[in-house]
Amino acid sequence: MRAVMKMAPGPGAQVVTNAPEPELKDDEVLIKVGAAMICGTDAHLYEWSKSAQDFNPRLPLIMGHECAGTIEAMGASVKGLALGDRVSVETHLFCGHCYPCRTGNAHNCVNMGLLGLTWDGVFAEYTKVPATACFPLPESIPMDIGAMFEPAGVSVHALQRAGNVASNSVLVCGAGPVGLVVIQLAMLYGASRVVALEVNPHRLKMAEKLGAIALDPREANVPEFCRKNFPRAGGVDVAFETSGASTMLPTLLESVRREGRVVTVGHPGQAVPVDIASYINKKGITLKGVFGRRVWDTWETLLALVETKRLDLSWLITHRLPLDQFTTGIELLKKDAAKVLLHP
Amino acid sequence: MRAVMKMAPGPGAQVVTNAPEPELKDDEVLIKVGAAMICGTDAHLYEWSKSAQDFNPRLPLIMGHECAGTIEAMGASVKGLALGDRVSVETHLFCGHCYPCRTGNAHNCVNMGLLGLTWDGVFAEYTKVPATACFPLPESIPMDIGAMFEPAGVSVHALQRAGNVASNSVLVCGAGPVGLVVIQLAMLYGASRVVALEVNPHRLKMAEKLGAIALDPREANVPEFCRKNFPRAGGVDVAFETSGASTMLPTLLESVRREGRVVTVGHPGQAVPVDIASYINKKGITLKGVFGRRVWDTWETLLALVETKRLDLSWLITHRLPLDQFTTGIELLKKDAAKVLLHP
Amino acid sequence: MRAVMKMAPGPGAQVVTNAPEPELKDDEVLIKVGAAMICGTDAHLYEWSKSAQDFNPRLPLIMGHECAGTIEAMGASVKGLALGDRVSVETHLFCGHCYPCRTGNAHNCVNMGLLGLTWDGVFAEYTKVPATACFPLPESIPMDIGAMFEPAGVSVHALQRAGNVASNSVLVCGAGPVGLVVIQLAMLYGASRVVALEVNPHRLKMAEKLGAIALDPREANVPEFCRKNFPRAGGVDVAFETSGASTMLPTLLESVRREGRVVTVGHPGQAVPVDIASYINKKGITLKGVFGRRVWDTWETLLALVETKRLDLSWLITHRLPLDQFTTGIELLKKDAAKVLLHP
Amino acid sequence: MRAVMKMAPGPGAQVVTNAPEPELKDDEVLIKVGAAMICGTDAHLYEWSKSAQDFNPRLPLIMGHECAGTIEAMGASVKGLALGDRVSVETHLFCGHCYPCRTGNAHNCVNMGLLGLTWDGVFAEYTKVPATACFPLPESIPMDIGAMFEPAGVSVHALQRAGNVASNSVLVCGAGPVGLVVIQLAMLYGASRVVALEVNPHRLKMAEKLGAIALDPREANVPEFCRKNFPRAGGVDVAFETSGASTMLPTLLESVRREGRVVTVGHPGQAVPVDIASYINKKGITLKGVFGRRVWDTWETLLALVETKRLDLSWLITHRLPLDQFTTGIELLKKDAAKVLLHP
Repeated sequence: MRAVMKMAPGPGAQVVTNAPEPELKDDEVLIKVGAAMICGTDAHLYEWSKSAQDFNPRLPLIMGHECAGTIEAMGASVKGLALGDRVSVETHLFCGHCYPCRTGNAHNCVNMGLLGLTWDGVFAEYTKVPATACFPLPESIPMDIGAMFEPAGVSVHALQRAGNVASNSVLVCGAGPVGLVVIQLAMLYGASRVVALEVNPHRLKMAEKLGAIALDPREANVPEFCRKNFPRAGGVDVAFETSGASTMLPTLLESVRREGRVVTVGHPGQAVPVDIASYINKKGITLKGVFGRRVWDTWETLLALVETKRLDLSWLITHRLPLDQFTTGIELLKKDAAKVLLHP
Repeated sequence: MRAVMKMAPGPGAQVVTNAPEPELKDDEVLIKVGAAMICGTDAHLYEWSKSAQDFNPRLPLIMGHECAGTIEAMGASVKGLALGDRVSVETHLFCGHCYPCRTGNAHNCVNMGLLGLTWDGVFAEYTKVPATACFPLPESIPMDIGAMFEPAGVSVHALQRAGNVASNSVLVCGAGPVGLVVIQLAMLYGASRVVALEVNPHRLKMAEKLGAIALDPREANVPEFCRKNFPRAGGVDVAFETSGASTMLPTLLESVRREGRVVTVGHPGQAVPVDIASYINKKGITLKGVFGRRVWDTWETLLALVETKRLDLSWLITHRLPLDQFTTGIELLKKDAAKVLLHP
Repeated sequence: MRAVMKMAPGPGAQVVTNAPEPELKDDEVLIKVGAAMICGTDAHLYEWSKSAQDFNPRLPLIMGHECAGTIEAMGASVKGLALGDRVSVETHLFCGHCYPCRTGNAHNCVNMGLLGLTWDGVFAEYTKVPATACFPLPESIPMDIGAMFEPAGVSVHALQRAGNVASNSVLVCGAGPVGLVVIQLAMLYGASRVVALEVNPHRLKMAEKLGAIALDPREANVPEFCRKNFPRAGGVDVAFETSGASTMLPTLLESVRREGRVVTVGHPGQAVPVDIASYINKKGITLKGVFGRRVWDTWETLLALVETKRLDLSWLITHRLPLDQFTTGIELLKKDAAKVLLHP
Repeated sequence: MRAVMKMAPGPGAQVVTNAPEPELKDDEVLIKVGAAMICGTDAHLYEWSKSAQDFNPRLPLIMGHECAGTIEAMGASVKGLALGDRVSVETHLFCGHCYPCRTGNAHNCVNMGLLGLTWDGVFAEYTKVPATACFPLPESIPMDIGAMFEPAGVSVHALQRAGNVASNSVLVCGAGPVGLVVIQLAMLYGASRVVALEVNPHRLKMAEKLGAIALDPREANVPEFCRKNFPRAGGVDVAFETSGASTMLPTLLESVRREGRVVTVGHPGQAVPVDIASYINKKGITLKGVFGRRVWDTWETLLALVETKRLDLSWLITHRLPLDQFTTGIELLKKDAAKVLLHP
């Protein structure tokens, strides 16, 4: 079958036509991929960055982890799914038996497989996953939007970690796809104001269109801006770091008010110096991070909002390409693209 | 001075012109009333209902408890306020020294005075309160809106008790002023859907205009409607009882999903039979109530939303009358009025 | 095989020797019962009380739901367990696919089977359950104690619903097995003081031995006792209702302090009148209930305490009988027994 | 009057006999100091360390901030206190009007005065504070123990930030007075196991006596110890950093389980490199800090435990000296002393 494969360590990947079709175990399902999305992680893997190598990718590998599709075949012991079911897929393939899995944190499974990193991925005609990794989609959700649940779920999860943001002032660092959906959700959840930090002027425009006050952090004194614009509380209530830039966390810690919250989503490439005494202790800031999505409350949250049309994610898909043009997709991501969809 | 006074037990109240001006203690402030609002409790007191008598009103009494105004005089020991400050006033006059006051629950003070019930109220040219009961208003907030903070704060508090409602399905019973603002806030806070129950067709329209699905509970099987419209969860995530009708709670308990929440705001006139085994135990429902507003987080929450224009409360003021026409105001409340404002 | 069976509606049950051995489906396991415990629910079922009939028991039925045992056989698709594994068993047989199951509330599954009520139970030589209902026991936990995890888990769950009780004053109504373990846990979790209410003098003694102040509610004015003994807060911080007596809830609501919590565990046989205005609204009480145990955090919590010997449950087993003497066990429960263990 | 004063920048302090008696403002009280305690911060100030200079101490200054005493005089506007009241004193002198003060975080007041750092302290015959900084002590609490509420409150606050630790495995880094009380509280609150890290063998013994497993971090691989001893969860549930050593945080981040919590109390002298990607994001750790105590829930918590004798703090007072021997006290702190009490 056709697939995007990374054959060996080092930069690059290639579209092949002879990838072997997946063979099913008893508890797995075969999915005919309906739509897939390119993620920043795919670009990292393509370029063989340190952050991608940190995941110990298993090569040769079919790339890709964001998709929706249709169940074409099922192992003998699969329950709760049927042939023809339309599903979106959780990237964190959890075992269901370890301590995190048994106590409500399956997204942080000890034996986690990662689709498109340690397990053959979704940039292909077919993919297979454990049945437990499937989220059935109602008829009302188009494939394209179904493929967005995994990436948009990261943003929903970030909001879940931040706690209730209703009436809060919110600072979002980074306006890539994750940051943009965080902005959109913060507005939808009743934030009093959202401030976006981003260096790319095109993304900054998108942030503004979603209702954020847009700032280029190179041109503004962000903590002072926050103190001045949120004088009652003396800073923003909550800040999200989605850029992965290791230099931004101290700025966020200085920009939130006393007893504020900071949620990190981006993975900085190196350790970040944190002034524990000044920020974590004396300022009383709570620092939390995000990895993946909660299984399945994040997904149900997203579905409830998308089904009732309170949340529209379609604007995020800025480009649609056939699978063969994967490399073009990677190039687009480096420019102004938000999400690039691949049709297998 | 001019004031609306209730002189003796029994129905009625009267506008007098010779009410004594308040005398200040060291820790009190004198407020020139800029705008006042009539509340359902005022109507109860006017009519001398059981629910009003339950508050042990201290007669003779200047009525009214929702207002904003300007500080005209201050006792010697008042700190943190200045002459000319525009303030809104907390009805729950808390002592600051009891256990609830010392542990974050001043709204439920053991020694609570109640403005317009056990302490001379605000339907007058001037009123006095302990300085600690004042919430300073920024210049950007008009007097009329400042007078809405107390009643709208009840709705904000109800949302605070319910926890995060983002993406939740919400059922609101009663579309009086409190219920309407609960609906408005639930939509603003990102509820996936809001269903309103109300028998008055005019109020039902208002609920619909705010984005709610409007139902007359006499004409619909509400629990079945909820099961059918929210089939995934099997009911609504959270329900608010704002009508005070003692018959509605069982309907709400049946309409929420397993592990759902119910928040009561209305005070039923009698005990309500609750099937503990079926709802509280086996269905895992959490039941909470609301009295007043949190001091001062509810107020800061409201201010952040009103100042940034994310929340507009002006539409709620359907009538404006001079103080003399207090009785007309009471009559209007029984019909279709939302909030009636009194100009002293 | 030998088993205690209830053949038909009405009082009674009988020990049979020809009960058919369970037949396994692919996802089920066969357990050789090592130890079983009689629960109050079994007595209700034996006596065919209304509360038992409310569960719609499926007759004829092998009774019993509290047990530990050894896996003797497994269906083809079972993962994460092995022959010979020692396990304790969750009574709430959850489907794993419904909304509560998918969002962290499997204990309140929509398609729940109930061991010993709607599914053949554990008072038998062998029992079978879905593999997902098994909690593997480390070697350090004896069978007898493993059989206690299900009932003790109800008490742990009650504490979990109550939130942190460290330094809290705690009122526990009812000193049957559930109430006694609630008392024991409250002390272990750092409650400042525990007050126990019970009419049976023997049980009251047991409560006292665990560190509680023991009161017979017929001889004491409980709310006044609480106001007097906890004068700072004006009542207890949290109250647990484990007796199931429908008359006690109002007493508890009056005995807790403002903004206190009440957790109900016992299932009253009829609806209980609750003064919403006075207690839930004006006093700000949070009311929550308990059904079963959280899957699997309650179990992990219990295991961590038992393994480290911080929690000893052995004293609760007051009687040990062979399976044949089931009826004697039921009689003992009506008197002073705490837990009666059955050896198959 | 007699007092310990720091006159000028640089190391040292001196006992004087001619310190001016405090003059009261209207909202202040004069306290005859009954007992005072030396804190690590006092030693820092004495030695003029960077961490002490960071607080911008106002010189010349009467040192000391942990005390209990008797009210000898009151300003005209003081309410809720009486002459002769025995009180313990909050070090964080909060304004009562700023945003943190108004929203439940007075311990992090924007206009905070710090007793013994920016406001004349308690190593003197008399001290004065705003009336709002007083916590009245019941007769049952001796002066010595009353003086312990401030430092022990830091430990209580640390536990409050960590959330419920019942059944949790707990790692405590540092067994100075704060760390020791954290250990004692964790045991009292039902932790399944507590592991203490400390280099001083005498303190390690004290930790062991409180029930902790004692480790010298120089001789043990702490993360491996935690993985091995808590194999189910794969690490400890929660870790407290009380040593202030900037090298220890990474060890704690590695020792907690996925989705664990880390609470920092010690103020490291420099920024600490934190691997956000590995620990905060991918491991899902929540990081929180502690500064001071919650006003007044921390104090009420402590009082409830001490009054009921569930918590004994007397063992912490290892030395008692007259005020004149302050310098000896500082020396003792550097050795094996836990708390040194000064009698004025």
